[in-house]
Amino acid sequence: MFPVRTGRIEENEMSVDIAQRVHNHNFRIDPVVRSLLDTDFYKLLMTYFIWRNYPDVAVTFSVKNRTKSVRLPDSISETELREQLDHVRSLQFSESELIWLQGARFYGQRNIFPGEFIDALRTMRLPEYKLRQEDGEFILDFTGPWWKVSHWEIPALSIINEMRARSAMADMSAYQLRVLYSNATSKLVRKLKDLSEAGVPRIAEFGTRRRHSWLWQDFVIEAMREELGENFLGTSNALHAMRHGIEAIGTNAHELPMTIAALSRLETQGYTNPSVSRRALFASQYEVLRQWQQTFIGNLLVALPDTFGSTQFLKNAYRNFPDIAEWRGFREDSKDPFVGGEEKIAFWKEVGQDPRQKIQLFSDGLDVDQMIALHEAFGGRILDGYGWGTMATNDFRGCDPRGLDLLDPISVVCKVSYVMRSGRGGISAVKLSDNYEKATGSEREIAYYREVFGAEGVANAPVIV
Amino acid sequence: MFPVRTGRIEENEMSVDIAQRVHNHNFRIDPVVRSLLDTDFYKLLMTYFIWRNYPDVAVTFSVKNRTKSVRLPDSISETELREQLDHVRSLQFSESELIWLQGARFYGQRNIFPGEFIDALRTMRLPEYKLRQEDGEFILDFTGPWWKVSHWEIPALSIINEMRARSAMADMSAYQLRVLYSNATSKLVRKLKDLSEAGVPRIAEFGTRRRHSWLWQDFVIEAMREELGENFLGTSNALHAMRHGIEAIGTNAHELPMTIAALSRLETQGYTNPSVSRRALFASQYEVLRQWQQTFIGNLLVALPDTFGSTQFLKNAYRNFPDIAEWRGFREDSKDPFVGGEEKIAFWKEVGQDPRQKIQLFSDGLDVDQMIALHEAFGGRILDGYGWGTMATNDFRGCDPRGLDLLDPISVVCKVSYVMRSGRGGISAVKLSDNYEKATGSEREIAYYREVFGAEGVANAPVIV
Repeated sequence: MFPVRTGRIEENEMSVDIAQRVHNHNFRIDPVVRSLLDTDFYKLLMTYFIWRNYPDVAVTFSVKNRTKSVRLPDSISETELREQLDHVRSLQFSESELIWLQGARFYGQRNIFPGEFIDALRTMRLPEYKLRQEDGEFILDFTGPWWKVSHWEIPALSIINEMRARSAMADMSAYQLRVLYSNATSKLVRKLKDLSEAGVPRIAEFGTRRRHSWLWQDFVIEAMREELGENFLGTSNALHAMRHGIEAIGTNAHELPMTIAALSRLETQGYTNPSVSRRALFASQYEVLRQWQQTFIGNLLVALPDTFGSTQFLKNAYRNFPDIAEWRGFREDSKDPFVGGEEKIAFWKEVGQDPRQKIQLFSDGLDVDQMIALHEAFGGRILDGYGWGTMATNDFRGCDPRGLDLLDPISVVCKVSYVMRSGRGGISAVKLSDNYEKATGSEREIAYYREVFGAEGVANAPVIV
Repeated sequence: MFPVRTGRIEENEMSVDIAQRVHNHNFRIDPVVRSLLDTDFYKLLMTYFIWRNYPDVAVTFSVKNRTKSVRLPDSISETELREQLDHVRSLQFSESELIWLQGARFYGQRNIFPGEFIDALRTMRLPEYKLRQEDGEFILDFTGPWWKVSHWEIPALSIINEMRARSAMADMSAYQLRVLYSNATSKLVRKLKDLSEAGVPRIAEFGTRRRHSWLWQDFVIEAMREELGENFLGTSNALHAMRHGIEAIGTNAHELPMTIAALSRLETQGYTNPSVSRRALFASQYEVLRQWQQTFIGNLLVALPDTFGSTQFLKNAYRNFPDIAEWRGFREDSKDPFVGGEEKIAFWKEVGQDPRQKIQLFSDGLDVDQMIALHEAFGGRILDGYGWGTMATNDFRGCDPRGLDLLDPISVVCKVSYVMRSGRGGISAVKLSDNYEKATGSEREIAYYREVFGAEGVANAPVIV
């Protein structure tokens, strides 16, 4: 005879894995980041670019909490933050991760990374961090070779966000947690069904840095695959992409034009003719594109025009860098996206290109209603795509059964703040962006950059996420 | 050194309990009902009452699907239904269940059940069932000693409802199930928070027979405890009450007046004076109360007045059974509850009692908005209480991520249909209720009962659940 389950209690006992329970008792820490591949894929593209073109440049990346109403040390213990950061410093890429990086097809291309770079990754460990508290907030920065320091950005941010979430949930009962995740699941799936019904195309998961947790991001990706079907483009997270067998998405970020601009400032520091210095700084934003094009091809040729203001960038792009006409498209990251989209369509027409063949990747604090409205505005006029970040992987607003807002997302960034080149000293890095609120850098340098780049088309939109 | 969890994969492997997985491979069936105590507590009160007062009466209970748009055999295999029913026939009360029944305090009283009845339960097995199909629907009935057959009602109904739910979920992926239960959890908790904010008092879980599943009911009870606090009265389910250590709620049901009325019909069948027969039938509805009062005391003295129409019941109650004035209250089960509540308040005043000291337990297809409205109407005027059934334990409407309605609750009942007494033959049992739609029995008997009891105050409200 076959056995029959006869008792509820027996069943409940069966479901406790005693070995796992004992294993759990002995955790020293529960690491947030357990692999160097648990990062945005574009970090690998960019650090290869840096390793190849700027091996001798050192930088400092600094963490900045842009949400003034929240002080991180109120919810995150400095000791535990150190443990998490130390754990990341103990990590190295595993052989299977390196094999995947070398063998996988990214944007239709194989062998993007040469063996020498894979060898460099094999032995890489992340540089030291400096952590202290000042005025009730953490001061956290990372200094060292640019291509290594750059690897800190994403793990540092995901650690801070997940530690904050863990702290918010520390007092919750099993029941409350069950309700919390049920609410968040229902909310997420409702949003995805809305996106699916509206037919919004080319949606990628971009939420690693602001995610609630690794496991939640894993579910978000599963839900996006289930609900969006062909309109799901992939994830920016390299480890999730590898594990799910889906596309790793992303190209480049502000640290490239920011650092290369700062390098031009260091180069021309001694020059007597100020207009030469200015011209060099101005030209540096196109120099990035030239070098990127020497390193990558095809769909990886997506430009980020807003580092020093999109309007001036576009106005002068074709004259300074005619190849831009052949690039695949733009990422839109700080301008009102409806204005920015029109600006890009006008640009492509001006340079004799059909905008309907060009990518326009929106990525600035997107949520569902805006994505639907953007697709209504731009669908069929340009290849609209969506890098959905915080509101995909960390939207727990209204989900806490206690009615608290401790799990609402905050805006913490980790940006290049200082650039050094041997024999030339160092200088503050600057981002102006299309939004005054998002500008970073020393006041003096920002003022200088504003003189050079102007402020045409720059708005003062409030920063939410 | 303490171990550190270093790999995601390792963690996932740890969470698979291989022994449990292998155990699961070998299930013959996954029984819906695994204990005879997994039933409404009032069945134990009633079967004790029957065992004591009517040991020689035999009855038939019949299952009836009142939702005409759904045919049960379309989703439930007859073979599997037989396996589930056979499994229930293999069950006996366990010693610890009997100890709990004998030792626990119900409504503040210990030792409600004498040792002789516990001994009878110890050896009891449920009588045979008869199952066949006719016109695309199951014909399922149970015949045998009343006190044993009565134990079939709740397991038969919970089996049918859970098998239907299992069938509706059979094709769902793990992802879809996760979303389904998240949606249902969010919906349930939202409802409970609404009840809590409105301050609706004395809410009991009454949903065993129509539950989605045992495990879901278990969570519903946990959620009610968490969200309702002091306003959570307990559960009608004896096994859940035992396992959670909470109050078992319930008193009596229509089968008592129905069967006792049918017995009076059998008694007076040969009488030549028709008015004697009619008087006997009419008086039987109060005879139940008299006998109940000889068996139980205190808070168990809650009357169910609607079996043959509440209006006529109340009008003649005090004259026929003056002790009714001392009873604790009424359960309201088929009349418009706003009308029924006013009727009961008027009744208590008429018999010189303060309605504010009397229980008014609403239990007919309740959901949140109605409970809140009833509390607004009756709070402070009578001790309003709420037996929340189907919409507590089986409200999955709108929760299926496929957009299907296969999990919407249906209305299946299992009622006494035929009453037999040795040497007197048998006769159809009748319920008139306060709602024509809910009337059951042979046409001829219903017509006779209507002559005797009249139809004052009977409405034709549609039956939803």
